[in-house]
Amino acid sequence: MNKEEIKAHFLDLQKSIINQLEMADGAGNFGSDTWQHHQGGGGITRVFTNGNIIEKGGVNFSAVSGELTLAASKALEIEAKEYFATGVSIVLHPANPFVPIIHMNVRYFETENGNYWFGGGIDLTPHYINKEDAKYFHKQLKAVCDKYSDSFYPKFKIWADNYFFLPHRNETRGVGGIFFDRLNEESTSLKKEDLAAFVIELGNLFAPLYAHFMLKNSTTPFQDENKHWQSLRRGRYVEFNLAFDRGTKFGLETGGRTESILMSLPAQASWEYDYHPAEGSDEELTLNALKKGIDWING
Amino acid sequence: MNKEEIKAHFLDLQKSIINQLEMADGAGNFGSDTWQHHQGGGGITRVFTNGNIIEKGGVNFSAVSGELTLAASKALEIEAKEYFATGVSIVLHPANPFVPIIHMNVRYFETENGNYWFGGGIDLTPHYINKEDAKYFHKQLKAVCDKYSDSFYPKFKIWADNYFFLPHRNETRGVGGIFFDRLNEESTSLKKEDLAAFVIELGNLFAPLYAHFMLKNSTTPFQDENKHWQSLRRGRYVEFNLAFDRGTKFGLETGGRTESILMSLPAQASWEYDYHPAEGSDEELTLNALKKGIDWING
Repeated sequence: MNKEEIKAHFLDLQKSIINQLEMADGAGNFGSDTWQHHQGGGGITRVFTNGNIIEKGGVNFSAVSGELTLAASKALEIEAKEYFATGVSIVLHPANPFVPIIHMNVRYFETENGNYWFGGGIDLTPHYINKEDAKYFHKQLKAVCDKYSDSFYPKFKIWADNYFFLPHRNETRGVGGIFFDRLNEESTSLKKEDLAAFVIELGNLFAPLYAHFMLKNSTTPFQDENKHWQSLRRGRYVEFNLAFDRGTKFGLETGGRTESILMSLPAQASWEYDYHPAEGSDEELTLNALKKGIDWING
Repeated sequence: MNKEEIKAHFLDLQKSIINQLEMADGAGNFGSDTWQHHQGGGGITRVFTNGNIIEKGGVNFSAVSGELTLAASKALEIEAKEYFATGVSIVLHPANPFVPIIHMNVRYFETENGNYWFGGGIDLTPHYINKEDAKYFHKQLKAVCDKYSDSFYPKFKIWADNYFFLPHRNETRGVGGIFFDRLNEESTSLKKEDLAAFVIELGNLFAPLYAHFMLKNSTTPFQDENKHWQSLRRGRYVEFNLAFDRGTKFGLETGGRTESILMSLPAQASWEYDYHPAEGSDEELTLNALKKGIDWING
């Protein structure tokens, strides 16, 4: 499978996810901005507004190519001059605090000297953790992983725990999911075709998986205190994305399109000095479950 | 002037600023949290709540000592094992969008082998830029600078333009001010006593300077659209502090107290995809003035 075919699959994936999300939401729609990269290629940024369920979100496609700067090749730890990168990135912030925030990314990278890899991940950030939901989420991810390699889910689950982590808070971002990078024949013993099939199948899982959570709780009644907590949790999401997320940092530093990268930020977020939820509250239960190493499937 | 005397001056400065801000605000008050650093020393974090004018803010004092990690000494580009650092840090977010956000920091750093330096700065971030206000602000800073060296204001003004800058937005954070670092006898030809006097005088300028802006516009009527714009500008403030501010990054990475460091974040902030203010609006005028190199004093 060559880069043009992978790019075409990702473009189809973007369309398919958008159709399903618009259907699940029932009201909002995705605006569309086509942009050019300053070196080569570009992308289609589609941001969701005025939704019934999704307050703010984006489903972005990009396929860019160009010369690797010294800083970029150093950061990527590769020796190459030219690169091609394509991917789909999604972050969705729901209005109802009982619907979780979700993130997905699938990407493909190659250089002129034949090196390539796939990367990506899906992780869930509930404002209120529900163990059954977390179990359902992880089981669906595991089912796709297991079709390709028994080693994928256990390895990628730990990778997500470590990646989606706020060291200054000693908190995971949410209930994790899977994260992977640099997948190629060398690192996995799987053929390029199989790895491509894996990320595309994962991409295709996304919309029905999130639609399940959208429909489950989008009409659950909530109080001001639930919105307040949601707003504080969004503040943590902002902290992670701006201060720690390597994708965001790499994008902003290498002259990526700012508005496309920062579509991941919520419509609104809050900070309150030294906030501690009441003892025994649902908020405290959630906070106590933001830990690495929880076995959500069998736990 | 030894480190204990400098520390005592900074502690007095914190108290004096708090008294003046409470008086200017008339309603809010500063809670007080005393904390210990894991290596040595600690701080007093005082966060402002329930103000008439200041919605959220902090006036922090700290005096910490300990061993420099390899990463820290590398980041600071010094060879030393032990350090002592003391300072006062302030960020104030007003409720009224016509009152500007302000930041001040004065700090002193020394190592066991006799190296020392002073650093700091004051910068103003109006949600709506008023040229007369910016002129007044810069004139006051220049007056203090000029008492110590003619070279200070021109140099420190450029330094602030470059430091308080969001490269991914190609915007300055606000109308700038002054920023300086590594001031010692070697770098300035001024005696340590004079440099200490400079940062203390700058610290003493802070409260009356900001009280002027608090009282000038805190009762100016505003509309929803002004609050909306304030909220988006706060989003930019969050972007700068989390993604670019070296003090925040250094603090979070070296195990500083998270809640004290992140007191700089507003109570609430917003993001809207690809927002452009209306042509000719006050919001657009402000956006167009967020540039480096503007001579606010002489226009």
